Amino acid sequence: MDNPFLVEVTRGHLVESRHRGSISVVDAEGATVFSIGDVDRRVFPRSAIKALQAMPLVESGIADKYGLVDEEIALACASHSGEPEHVRVAASMLAKAGQDAGCLECGTHWPMGEAANRALAASGGSPSALHNNCSGKHAGFICLACGQGDNPTGYVLADHPVQRKVRETLEDITGACHSIEKSGIDGCSIPTYAIRLPSLAFGFARFGTGIGLPGEGKAAAARIRKAVARHPFMVAGTGRFDTRLMELLGERAFVKVGAEGVYCASFPELGYGIALKADDGNARAAEAMMAGLVLRFLELGHDERKAVEALAQPVLRNWNGIELGQIRVSSEITGAA
Amino acid sequence: MDNPFLVEVTRGHLVESRHRGSISVVDAEGATVFSIGDVDRRVFPRSAIKALQAMPLVESGIADKYGLVDEEIALACASHSGEPEHVRVAASMLAKAGQDAGCLECGTHWPMGEAANRALAASGGSPSALHNNCSGKHAGFICLACGQGDNPTGYVLADHPVQRKVRETLEDITGACHSIEKSGIDGCSIPTYAIRLPSLAFGFARFGTGIGLPGEGKAAAARIRKAVARHPFMVAGTGRFDTRLMELLGERAFVKVGAEGVYCASFPELGYGIALKADDGNARAAEAMMAGLVLRFLELGHDERKAVEALAQPVLRNWNGIELGQIRVSSEITGAA
Repeated sequence: MDNPFLVEVTRGHLVESRHRGSISVVDAEGATVFSIGDVDRRVFPRSAIKALQAMPLVESGIADKYGLVDEEIALACASHSGEPEHVRVAASMLAKAGQDAGCLECGTHWPMGEAANRALAASGGSPSALHNNCSGKHAGFICLACGQGDNPTGYVLADHPVQRKVRETLEDITGACHSIEKSGIDGCSIPTYAIRLPSLAFGFARFGTGIGLPGEGKAAAARIRKAVARHPFMVAGTGRFDTRLMELLGERAFVKVGAEGVYCASFPELGYGIALKADDGNARAAEAMMAGLVLRFLELGHDERKAVEALAQPVLRNWNGIELGQIRVSSEITGAA
Repeated sequence: MDNPFLVEVTRGHLVESRHRGSISVVDAEGATVFSIGDVDRRVFPRSAIKALQAMPLVESGIADKYGLVDEEIALACASHSGEPEHVRVAASMLAKAGQDAGCLECGTHWPMGEAANRALAASGGSPSALHNNCSGKHAGFICLACGQGDNPTGYVLADHPVQRKVRETLEDITGACHSIEKSGIDGCSIPTYAIRLPSLAFGFARFGTGIGLPGEGKAAAARIRKAVARHPFMVAGTGRFDTRLMELLGERAFVKVGAEGVYCASFPELGYGIALKADDGNARAAEAMMAGLVLRFLELGHDERKAVEALAQPVLRNWNGIELGQIRVSSEITGAA
């Protein structure tokens, strides 16, 4: 089955590039609300499920045991830009578990945020694992290991108690088998398990509503959603899509990007979970698709709608500020007439 | 017509993302040698035709009038990384025409090369238009304007004598009408005209062989090809695909990337011109496609083949150096059994 064109990029009066993809929107009972394209193909959720991977930390009571505050819980769900505040909060999480950056097994890269990248270079500094966009998630894993009484060393490996616990949580919340044969290794060295979009969407419908989760799970999901809504800067960073959208909509939309064109979301007031993938892995397409779904499903005020439209159909300009074209999401997604 | 999948990106044992595209290979008589996908769709060639845009500068004798040397002619064809050598050579071109960076109308951006970007920040500097990846092409335009006795101001505009001359050259070499209605504005503010891949490929077959060009055109094409083959660093930069491939193959392959997944090439010994586009605009796909065509068409020694295979099927590793997957170009391109 060929996935349809869902996003086009124009230049002048012509379409220059086109993106195909698939989308699944599911409610907390598992019923499909909306579906486009081949949703039976397995997808690596990558970083789009960091909030689900953070569930054991909160659900177990370990976040409370270490006194993690909202911005720390938000950072545990982040693909952050490596800005100074992100680095500070990651270090604080580790310190609360009596650890430091030497425990991080995510690898080191320069800050993903361009301004943070250059500011670090300008200061004569060099990056540590704290600048890795996944350092908050990893700090959360280290807290989980220490809180459970496990040695954190090797916490990225599939058979470490941390990853076993995370995998069990993912299977519980999505209802899908997470098999090693269908897994790969993520950019930050932890396993990523390929599952189908409707399972992923179902997991986010439950995460967004608590429906079908045990008491601790329901409370943990609510706490994580609230923490992220209060600190949308922590999950991404300056100018980033997730930060902008959640600054705008607060708890009405939990959205999280993953690498290779994946996006997941919960729309709690509707009880919907969403999972989508751009076939080619392109982030601009995945962002436009997600913004298009917000336009389709959420009731937005006039200013909110204008702001989301700017994310769904951004105008492209060059270095001189001249308008070149636009990214356009298909009306098949937005439902626009 | 749906374009076929030409490049896939794997993770673990699964395909994570897929790219579709179209390819045209044409000889200097205009006969199609090889074709994949819908090649009738118009494509913006973007920076892939910088070598053709540099033809008037050389053909007119103005490059000689100003004493431009090979590395300067190579930079006129470049999408460079903004490394110090690129900046130095762009400034030198302008000085030879009695101008300076204040004349550049390409806009300013931080160096495209990550190391150059951070080095500039670390030095406390900030970018000028000389760091723009198109500064060499623009310096060439300014030389052309001054050499023709035109005021360079506004040289990026479609009706300036420089862009009129460039458009005339593009029409002559590709045989295709370049219409304003089918044009857009490029990242560096000059017009880009959408034409069909076979016309683009035909232009590069003629550029690579000189067949069908007037005497000055034939000499200019040969001089540009030689200049680039001698200075492949100038057309791109450290670690970049075009630089690596031409360092390896010299005058046997002229290759040039364009934005939004476009690539053009000449294989002079075969008399072939090539133009391709990844539907989604992704550079990794376009690079793999181009490397796959080199594997298909050029007779390579053992070590050359290994090096080109590494460009066609690069192994993907994460920040810890762990192998995650691979980019794989289709055997429909390489012709591999």
